[in-house]
Amino acid sequence: MQKGRIRLGLIGGGPNSFIGPVHRIAAYMGERYQLVGGVFDVDFEASKQFAEKLELDVNRTYANLDEFIEKESALPAEERIEVVSILTPNFLHYPMAAQLIKAGFNVICEKPITMKASEAVELESLVKEHNVVFCLTHTYTGYPMVRQMKAMIADGAIGKIQKVDAQYYQGWINPFIHEKEKRASVWRLDPAKSGQSCCYGDIGVHAFNLIEYTTGLEVEKVLADLNTLYEDNPLDIDGTTLIRTKEGVRGVICASQIATGEENNIKICVYGDKGGLVWEQENPTYLKFMQEGQPAQIIKPGNPYNTEFALESTKIAPGHPEGLFDAMGNIYAGTAQAIRGEKFREGAFPNVQDGVRGMKFIEAVLASSGNGQTWETI
Amino acid sequence: MQKGRIRLGLIGGGPNSFIGPVHRIAAYMGERYQLVGGVFDVDFEASKQFAEKLELDVNRTYANLDEFIEKESALPAEERIEVVSILTPNFLHYPMAAQLIKAGFNVICEKPITMKASEAVELESLVKEHNVVFCLTHTYTGYPMVRQMKAMIADGAIGKIQKVDAQYYQGWINPFIHEKEKRASVWRLDPAKSGQSCCYGDIGVHAFNLIEYTTGLEVEKVLADLNTLYEDNPLDIDGTTLIRTKEGVRGVICASQIATGEENNIKICVYGDKGGLVWEQENPTYLKFMQEGQPAQIIKPGNPYNTEFALESTKIAPGHPEGLFDAMGNIYAGTAQAIRGEKFREGAFPNVQDGVRGMKFIEAVLASSGNGQTWETI
Amino acid sequence: MQKGRIRLGLIGGGPNSFIGPVHRIAAYMGERYQLVGGVFDVDFEASKQFAEKLELDVNRTYANLDEFIEKESALPAEERIEVVSILTPNFLHYPMAAQLIKAGFNVICEKPITMKASEAVELESLVKEHNVVFCLTHTYTGYPMVRQMKAMIADGAIGKIQKVDAQYYQGWINPFIHEKEKRASVWRLDPAKSGQSCCYGDIGVHAFNLIEYTTGLEVEKVLADLNTLYEDNPLDIDGTTLIRTKEGVRGVICASQIATGEENNIKICVYGDKGGLVWEQENPTYLKFMQEGQPAQIIKPGNPYNTEFALESTKIAPGHPEGLFDAMGNIYAGTAQAIRGEKFREGAFPNVQDGVRGMKFIEAVLASSGNGQTWETI
Amino acid sequence: MQKGRIRLGLIGGGPNSFIGPVHRIAAYMGERYQLVGGVFDVDFEASKQFAEKLELDVNRTYANLDEFIEKESALPAEERIEVVSILTPNFLHYPMAAQLIKAGFNVICEKPITMKASEAVELESLVKEHNVVFCLTHTYTGYPMVRQMKAMIADGAIGKIQKVDAQYYQGWINPFIHEKEKRASVWRLDPAKSGQSCCYGDIGVHAFNLIEYTTGLEVEKVLADLNTLYEDNPLDIDGTTLIRTKEGVRGVICASQIATGEENNIKICVYGDKGGLVWEQENPTYLKFMQEGQPAQIIKPGNPYNTEFALESTKIAPGHPEGLFDAMGNIYAGTAQAIRGEKFREGAFPNVQDGVRGMKFIEAVLASSGNGQTWETI
Repeated sequence: MQKGRIRLGLIGGGPNSFIGPVHRIAAYMGERYQLVGGVFDVDFEASKQFAEKLELDVNRTYANLDEFIEKESALPAEERIEVVSILTPNFLHYPMAAQLIKAGFNVICEKPITMKASEAVELESLVKEHNVVFCLTHTYTGYPMVRQMKAMIADGAIGKIQKVDAQYYQGWINPFIHEKEKRASVWRLDPAKSGQSCCYGDIGVHAFNLIEYTTGLEVEKVLADLNTLYEDNPLDIDGTTLIRTKEGVRGVICASQIATGEENNIKICVYGDKGGLVWEQENPTYLKFMQEGQPAQIIKPGNPYNTEFALESTKIAPGHPEGLFDAMGNIYAGTAQAIRGEKFREGAFPNVQDGVRGMKFIEAVLASSGNGQTWETI
Repeated sequence: MQKGRIRLGLIGGGPNSFIGPVHRIAAYMGERYQLVGGVFDVDFEASKQFAEKLELDVNRTYANLDEFIEKESALPAEERIEVVSILTPNFLHYPMAAQLIKAGFNVICEKPITMKASEAVELESLVKEHNVVFCLTHTYTGYPMVRQMKAMIADGAIGKIQKVDAQYYQGWINPFIHEKEKRASVWRLDPAKSGQSCCYGDIGVHAFNLIEYTTGLEVEKVLADLNTLYEDNPLDIDGTTLIRTKEGVRGVICASQIATGEENNIKICVYGDKGGLVWEQENPTYLKFMQEGQPAQIIKPGNPYNTEFALESTKIAPGHPEGLFDAMGNIYAGTAQAIRGEKFREGAFPNVQDGVRGMKFIEAVLASSGNGQTWETI
Repeated sequence: MQKGRIRLGLIGGGPNSFIGPVHRIAAYMGERYQLVGGVFDVDFEASKQFAEKLELDVNRTYANLDEFIEKESALPAEERIEVVSILTPNFLHYPMAAQLIKAGFNVICEKPITMKASEAVELESLVKEHNVVFCLTHTYTGYPMVRQMKAMIADGAIGKIQKVDAQYYQGWINPFIHEKEKRASVWRLDPAKSGQSCCYGDIGVHAFNLIEYTTGLEVEKVLADLNTLYEDNPLDIDGTTLIRTKEGVRGVICASQIATGEENNIKICVYGDKGGLVWEQENPTYLKFMQEGQPAQIIKPGNPYNTEFALESTKIAPGHPEGLFDAMGNIYAGTAQAIRGEKFREGAFPNVQDGVRGMKFIEAVLASSGNGQTWETI
Repeated sequence: MQKGRIRLGLIGGGPNSFIGPVHRIAAYMGERYQLVGGVFDVDFEASKQFAEKLELDVNRTYANLDEFIEKESALPAEERIEVVSILTPNFLHYPMAAQLIKAGFNVICEKPITMKASEAVELESLVKEHNVVFCLTHTYTGYPMVRQMKAMIADGAIGKIQKVDAQYYQGWINPFIHEKEKRASVWRLDPAKSGQSCCYGDIGVHAFNLIEYTTGLEVEKVLADLNTLYEDNPLDIDGTTLIRTKEGVRGVICASQIATGEENNIKICVYGDKGGLVWEQENPTYLKFMQEGQPAQIIKPGNPYNTEFALESTKIAPGHPEGLFDAMGNIYAGTAQAIRGEKFREGAFPNVQDGVRGMKFIEAVLASSGNGQTWETI
């Protein structure tokens, strides 16, 4: 068993990266990781300069993933990087993750896990075969009140689930979507870079993930109506999906990138025969708990009445808001437990199975919409 | 042209009626109606006692609708009741409205307008033929901020509409739905009393109405997934509907009576290429207006920056909340204008066409769901 | 004992009156009052035209209060107006109320009860001597959730009170206050019309009243810092008051008319050793109930878990908002019970003692501030 | 000029410290600091074990502050710890800060800066004399929307200020305050450990600081009514303070630790002749901006319409909440700029002057309340 800080490598996340700092801060937060090296940028010089700026040992900065794997693998186990965060463009997630897993590295992978479901399935096999830890950063599962929701539902607080409703509304694409030239400038609208789907691949899948994460239900069938708004726009930017779970629960997922004015409006509502729970990402420290015949309660983090899972996911006293970085920090903390072979809770971090589920969901949604709103099995 | 107060009659709404006081208060509010008489209860004695309690002339209390029509029609025009509010059980709305219209009375009718779309179409013809005023009390259209929303959208405040999302969630049926005996006690679950639909007939249609009312769009096709929760429950108590409008806009209507803990959670969101508008019934004095690249605004009633329609629909200074009775009062006020041949705004009260649209919507939803989620044209 | 509708007269409230419709609607709401006549305007012709517009018997419209009293007193008791609502300018409240009480009429009086505390004391004696009902329309006490708060505190829900905080912030005077000429145009800034105080006389006293109403505590001493903003402005338009109650509880009242952008932001917070309660007027259907070590609850009207007092003060099912008119309607309903000698709850309507308390509070605040922030006893 | 990461030392913040992780995470966030060593605990062994756990060079862990200063001062400048965060019990802040400043170290000091105003004044002189950077962690000034508020007010967005109102309500002391034995167990109620004041020293001073920080006004006089609730409780746990600024603006500060059920309810409202701004700590990503005659706006972080200061204080896209750790991170980031001699904004971090102001405020409040509510000059 390894000791001390977990040695972390990064692929991507270098200069001008938006997501790089999120991962580094999340890794720092629990004080269990030590960033050691990686391939921070495709430009080796830029990568090395970045390592210097971060005061890292530049010898652990590599020209590319092949070199990374070769050189790191040659190091003794107690020096070798233990886990690699993949922060590269989407289409590189799959091949890089596969290569790293095969070489025995644990992996933390940005969303989407792959471009196709079949690739995710392959990663799932590889993870099993090579017995590594694989974390997929569905960040919203790291919020204390999402974990409170999951634990309460598992504890029967709302009884038997009878309705689920998840929504993810953004408006960011609106300024770009209405003119052909502007559309062309958006990488998320380019299938080569973005994959099969824009709206569902990027955000709809989060809503799906939150449903399965909080409820433990398994979505079985979907019927989707996706919208590209313009005929020459190849990818969905909006759409509604009807869902049915294996357990017979019906629900709906609404996702949009043309909900003008909305910033990052993710909301999940789950109703059972004893009560309901509602959580909204932009006010993440409030969980609304409605019980039959009683006043609604506003559950907040850090209080003794919280579930253990929620309490463990909070670093500070009640009334002091935590945010997205803290949620990601919780996911890194859970992954650290798995890497070091410690006991960890179910749900401590999203894993490769969550990635497979998500990709299958996206492909079923695309098939349903493409077929003119048929029911498709995930 | 008639003068003075509009002479109002009631059919139903007597002792123990929940909806009776709502209509009477709404009629009082604008000081344009005078309650004169009616058939307050099926029991003639109870009806007369009720008239006495209200200090009405008991001679204008009638044993039944036939007598009402016969005796009132015999009175000179300047004494005769001018408009009749129909507050009877649902299945009586259609025959009573038809009879009254044929006799030349203006009608204010509670929702649902009829049990079948074909009946609503017939009422539409009768209204035209007999040239009477017909108001259908879709109460939520009377809120100042709903009218503000309608007027702003018409004025182009949010540009070309690209997404609509309306929701109506309640949880009231939850305590009754899970046991066979309790189910049997709920009249809304009895097709003979409630009609073809429970959830969509009662509340889904409100969400539909708010979409058409605020946007001016015409919903053309629907695809619905209704839920009865139990096989022996004949009527929908939950369901999601995908919609497409004649203008090509897509959207969604979510309705539920098993959203445990929700009271009367109606919400409508409309997004255009310039901005978005969101209104929630339980906080009716706040209208959220989001514009591309600007802070969201919170529009409130009674302010000089309101549209004229909203200003005319408010009786008091900013910061003093008005509620549901005030909304209904606005609808009565609009109907009064029509009855007296005064100029009235489009949208001043929901009319027979709104009733036809609603019934056709409900039947299309039922057909779609019954057929296993096909697209049905309204 | 009188029967049927209570015969209501109005002094003031005629054409162009803002407050007139509020009182008439409130009176209609419970269907216990019948407006019969009054002195609607100082101009007798205008008054009669107004009576005609309201379809009243013009013979019951009088030229002035003397004639009103003379003619009505001459009528048999079962025809005579039983209660008179005084809606005239502030300086007329006292003499008119005194005259009416002496003549044996019950009185509903707009705020402020008088211009001076001594006058209110005199009215209190007259009410006792002539055994009439006197209602002072502190409208906010009519909201169901304010009554819920009062009943919960009385029931010990928050334990022994240890802190009170009431606030009333408006911004309406801001556009007028900064220029001498505009200031001169505001009647509330003219002591001859407005009395000794602008901000505290008009709104601070509401905050004070809400404290005594909801808690049952008696404010004993005040220390106030009032602000006129400009030296040549004779009346307070802002100010904070420290309070201490007879029971030893300390608290604060904040009032302002220069809180730019605020509409009618009244808020009351009461904290005890078991819990706290917070209510805000602009969201009147939500009462926040905080208990030691538990999630905060959001109490809403019309639910079975409400106190009886709150339930009796709601006319409609949960989730359907009621507003200011409904609050005033509840006060009229309580007054009706008293007029007809029925049992009524403590707090069913604000009375002459509340008026005396309010006026003494205002004068103590003015004295304290005038003396340079001394403690003054109410 | 120094290069690379700023070498950070900690005094306190070791095992079981609540505040330690907050400071370390904040230091990590901007990737400008490197924790090097310190005195993590009074127990040297515990301290060294803590250093090992954090994988620090144990040679840089010292037995006490004297040794820390002696050994670190002996190191070459480019190795020496540059800044020391003081996280010890309150009564040690002053002597330790003084010692460190005299030895030429930059200091980041937890609140309160000292036990007495005179000590803070002395630190101010020392900072000047030794030309070091001194940061006092008034964390709330680090929130993006607080900085937005400060910048907007400076830019004239609300015009000339005419009213300020700041509140800090907590309920945490309620479970301990009502029994003598429990009271004795609370270190904050022990003057030897907590200083002259409990409520104002701990939280009231934050409200004061937010007023001066956001408005740039200078509070000149205070009149306070503090409450100990029990006679044998030596320290204030609640109290209201009237304030007047040098510029003639009046306002109020409300603070309480007996507001049962409140968690960390800090709120600041500033009203000018053009508009008003309201911010609440528990919903830190929303800033309400009210303008005369216009709908209120909800300003959120990360948007192009933000002020530069707010934009620089946000690390992520709009709609992704940041929290308290991020606010503290911004303060560390500002301090880093000062330490390295870079240009920094006024308000980038609270400094020794803010500490002096705060201590003088607390002493004036205590004097005023002790004297029976006199006006005291700060």
